[in-house]
Amino acid sequence: MSNIALLVAYDGTRFAGFQRQVSDRTVQGELETAIGRITCRSPEELKLKAAGRTDAGVHAWGQVVNFDAPPRNVDWVKALNSLLPGDIAVQKAKEVSPEFHSRYSATGRSYRYQVLMRETPDPFVRHTSYQVDRPLDIPAMREAWRQLVGCYDFGAFCSTGSTPRSTICTVTAADLLVEGNALYLDISAKSFLYHMVRRLVGTVLEIGTGMRSPESFLALRDGEGKTGPTAPSEGLTLMDVTYPSHLGWNE
Amino acid sequence: MSNIALLVAYDGTRFAGFQRQVSDRTVQGELETAIGRITCRSPEELKLKAAGRTDAGVHAWGQVVNFDAPPRNVDWVKALNSLLPGDIAVQKAKEVSPEFHSRYSATGRSYRYQVLMRETPDPFVRHTSYQVDRPLDIPAMREAWRQLVGCYDFGAFCSTGSTPRSTICTVTAADLLVEGNALYLDISAKSFLYHMVRRLVGTVLEIGTGMRSPESFLALRDGEGKTGPTAPSEGLTLMDVTYPSHLGWNE
Repeated sequence: MSNIALLVAYDGTRFAGFQRQVSDRTVQGELETAIGRITCRSPEELKLKAAGRTDAGVHAWGQVVNFDAPPRNVDWVKALNSLLPGDIAVQKAKEVSPEFHSRYSATGRSYRYQVLMRETPDPFVRHTSYQVDRPLDIPAMREAWRQLVGCYDFGAFCSTGSTPRSTICTVTAADLLVEGNALYLDISAKSFLYHMVRRLVGTVLEIGTGMRSPESFLALRDGEGKTGPTAPSEGLTLMDVTYPSHLGWNE
Repeated sequence: MSNIALLVAYDGTRFAGFQRQVSDRTVQGELETAIGRITCRSPEELKLKAAGRTDAGVHAWGQVVNFDAPPRNVDWVKALNSLLPGDIAVQKAKEVSPEFHSRYSATGRSYRYQVLMRETPDPFVRHTSYQVDRPLDIPAMREAWRQLVGCYDFGAFCSTGSTPRSTICTVTAADLLVEGNALYLDISAKSFLYHMVRRLVGTVLEIGTGMRSPESFLALRDGEGKTGPTAPSEGLTLMDVTYPSHLGWNE
């Protein structure tokens, strides 16, 4: 059996999330159908794994999946893109080491949250950004966002309903960029808690609108206090996933 | 009666074009419904006019429309955006001179055609650009595209079925820009023939792929020869419409 890994981009708007569901349209479902048509294998046989099981409405530029395929000479990128619907596109395909597991082998994940700072709506980015029509205190937000880097208990930012083994996360990078009226909140870590990025965004936006002090945001990082709301899914994109070089995924 | 003009942006993907139709969803239909809810007036009474009646799938950043409204104090931008669907958004509203006619008063229209130069599809711009996966000769295309500026008979680029009074157009600006893997073909004129921009794009792309000489493209500009195909509608956006300052539309 070959272990095939794919780099996948998708517009999450019309998906009920990544993970396969019985009746709803999902990214995993579409990928399994397309791969199944090429390999004549069932979803059970393919054992498709993914680096991040994104929620409904969340997008990806750099999702990584892998699956078991019969050792055959296939141009996976061309073949899959000819079968997949327009809102999913494979960007790269590579046979990787048998130990490569897109979820468990990942050493880092990067997300970007896009905020549109604009008074009137922009129909072209309505599915990929969250519009805020009040003025934002960018320097205060940037200062607080960058303070996320480090190893902290992010339990306060974890949605109830999930029971992670640990709520300690190590954030390796956190940046805030502004390009025109787009505000990008970038964050990287080995892994994140459920809804953590969207809740961090919802809370840092409260600093931007003057509803919260930077100090109360940083106290949350150690488990003290109450977070802001979970920011809407459409602003979030899984940008990049990294793997150790010996597993054969990197160029 | 007040003459109200609006600057309107829309994602044309899910519209059967601008112009009202009996059964299909159109930009005009959605605008008339929303304006009608505020003014309690029928489409016949509103007499909505538009600078450019864009085709199905064509987008706008700078469409201009105007209509008759009872003289009342309304925040048109806020009120209409709260009623309109997400794929249309009013960017500006202004009471203009009674003589202002969004179509007949216009002194210039600018369009942009976006080509995505990429081997694999990009799900995020699939509705707003036309993907070309072969390499393009950008300098040759730019050189030819810029030669469109001037007064010529563009009859060869006019789709059959339309019967314009004249096929002479004066192109006032034509530029080709590259940003990353996006190629922008910008063109401005007082007015354009039916399908003219998309047919110019389809033809200049033949220069880019080496299928046509720049000379045969320029000969077409004077009515000699056969054009290339009409480029797909999703790449085209109406960017800007200009009016004489005495009509009260400009800031």
